[in-house]
Amino acid sequence: MHGGDFGPAVTVPAALDVLASRPDVEILLCGMAEDIQPLLGRTTPDRLTIIAASHALASDARPVEALRRGRGSSLWLAMEQVSSGRAHACVSAGSTAAMLALGVKLLGMLAGIERPALMSRIPSASGHTSLLDLGANLNVSANQLVQFAIMGSVASAVEGNVRPSVALLNVGHEDSKGDAVVKEAHAMLKELPINYTGFIEGHDIFAGKVNVAVCDGFSGNLILKSGEGLAKMYFRQLDLALHSGVLARLGGVLVRPSLEQILARFEPSKHNGAPLLGLRSVVVKSHGNANREALGHAIDEAVEKARQQVPKSIESMIQDYSIEVDA
Amino acid sequence: MHGGDFGPAVTVPAALDVLASRPDVEILLCGMAEDIQPLLGRTTPDRLTIIAASHALASDARPVEALRRGRGSSLWLAMEQVSSGRAHACVSAGSTAAMLALGVKLLGMLAGIERPALMSRIPSASGHTSLLDLGANLNVSANQLVQFAIMGSVASAVEGNVRPSVALLNVGHEDSKGDAVVKEAHAMLKELPINYTGFIEGHDIFAGKVNVAVCDGFSGNLILKSGEGLAKMYFRQLDLALHSGVLARLGGVLVRPSLEQILARFEPSKHNGAPLLGLRSVVVKSHGNANREALGHAIDEAVEKARQQVPKSIESMIQDYSIEVDA
Repeated sequence: MHGGDFGPAVTVPAALDVLASRPDVEILLCGMAEDIQPLLGRTTPDRLTIIAASHALASDARPVEALRRGRGSSLWLAMEQVSSGRAHACVSAGSTAAMLALGVKLLGMLAGIERPALMSRIPSASGHTSLLDLGANLNVSANQLVQFAIMGSVASAVEGNVRPSVALLNVGHEDSKGDAVVKEAHAMLKELPINYTGFIEGHDIFAGKVNVAVCDGFSGNLILKSGEGLAKMYFRQLDLALHSGVLARLGGVLVRPSLEQILARFEPSKHNGAPLLGLRSVVVKSHGNANREALGHAIDEAVEKARQQVPKSIESMIQDYSIEVDA
Repeated sequence: MHGGDFGPAVTVPAALDVLASRPDVEILLCGMAEDIQPLLGRTTPDRLTIIAASHALASDARPVEALRRGRGSSLWLAMEQVSSGRAHACVSAGSTAAMLALGVKLLGMLAGIERPALMSRIPSASGHTSLLDLGANLNVSANQLVQFAIMGSVASAVEGNVRPSVALLNVGHEDSKGDAVVKEAHAMLKELPINYTGFIEGHDIFAGKVNVAVCDGFSGNLILKSGEGLAKMYFRQLDLALHSGVLARLGGVLVRPSLEQILARFEPSKHNGAPLLGLRSVVVKSHGNANREALGHAIDEAVEKARQQVPKSIESMIQDYSIEVDA
């Protein structure tokens, strides 16, 4: 495990929380030992090991920088713990671009997958929708969209959805809509034995029409971040409304418990932890500004995805399907 | 003016509302006379003329269908009123693809603009942000993004923003982020004398950082529609919270007035009416499911954009800038 905007001040307490709640989990904390140790006191707790890094990559480190100057950094070491078999999953709140570059270099891609994709759960009317890709791939081919759909289907299935429904995001529902790439991916996905339901539009994500929504990383990143911005604006306006005048304040006190209960599940920290699918091992990206609770969710996500052996399931499904696609 | 999901049942009352509130506006209602006339009673009001159409295009009509079977349809006639000079602007709640195709054919493109772009106002923390393109162009070149930025700047300026700030949507703020197309557009925009502020991310749209946000139509359409879906989900959850239990109900009664006041400006119908920029005349797209009030806003938008002679301003700015870009 490695870093984030707040460094050990958040990672250490989050790691201790997870160790306390999951007695069968061990954590290797990769970072600057001199920053970590003071937060732990004199004795390092059971099941926690500090892996001393020589430096940390910048939170906006580019791939070339990660590859050239990454050796010995906290992220590099975290990936190495996984590639050497000492750890089963890597969690980082660092640069997505650096995670991608080092993930491909140190862990390697699954056979049959061209590029890793970042997936996240988004709250919807019926629970949540998993959206991918979120920015790992700005331009994608039809083949890559198909691979994202298969990876999303596998990752959603291990979460308990028996036959996850998967859709392609597009500007309309009809077969004739969209550009050549989405149309080609649409035609290919129809032939696969996954539960592909066709094109959906932006509003369908939150209506909870499908388990998995697939798009290129440029659009996915804009959808995710604009949604976060919109949610933030609404919450602020809601708060203003509940403080505007004596009656509203009084009413605000009365509605707050049920409001908080219902809106709690839209809390972004609860959805922190985006798996980077397509690598040979489990890698989970945390929000750079994740707090202790949010980072804990990302670690939980990594534990679950490792237990469920998601990379192995993806590889076997991709191999099965490649045969059909090629045949 | 022409159609929509609800046809004359909405267009006729909306037209009458606008005629009542704007004594200097005249409306030519293009559609099936036998459906319109009964809604008007025996006498057609002053400043309202019915232009009898032979048929209406389907709400999902494709460009080729609009071009082949469009002649004599309500949309075709509405565009013809503008091209012949009888009307100053066209409003339609029909198929965007058909509006685009017939707009280009019957009204023509402005010199220097390759493709029209659909723009809409999105509520933000500081008022609103104009977003374009919203789906008229799925794949765009750097040149086209630059043209969208100029068109957005002109359209925002006539709304009263003295030197509208314009930004390109991207997956990060740094110059190194994004694909080749956005990077090239970014470099070109920096050289232009518009108030280009650089890259913004999805969440910046709602934070109200800029007046105009520019992106390709695929991403823009997904951002707009996913935002609409998210807003709908929040309002429903909010409503549930205000009805869950006796105390929440009582509190709900107390907070409702201030809540409605603050949230009213997020009401999508208030933002209905997306100008299709780049054509030689003003064309405004209304939501297909717009109600009477929402369609009224789209007509208002068309009146304002025609008064402000937006196409003329765009053309002169594009010509000025082309010289600089080519030089």
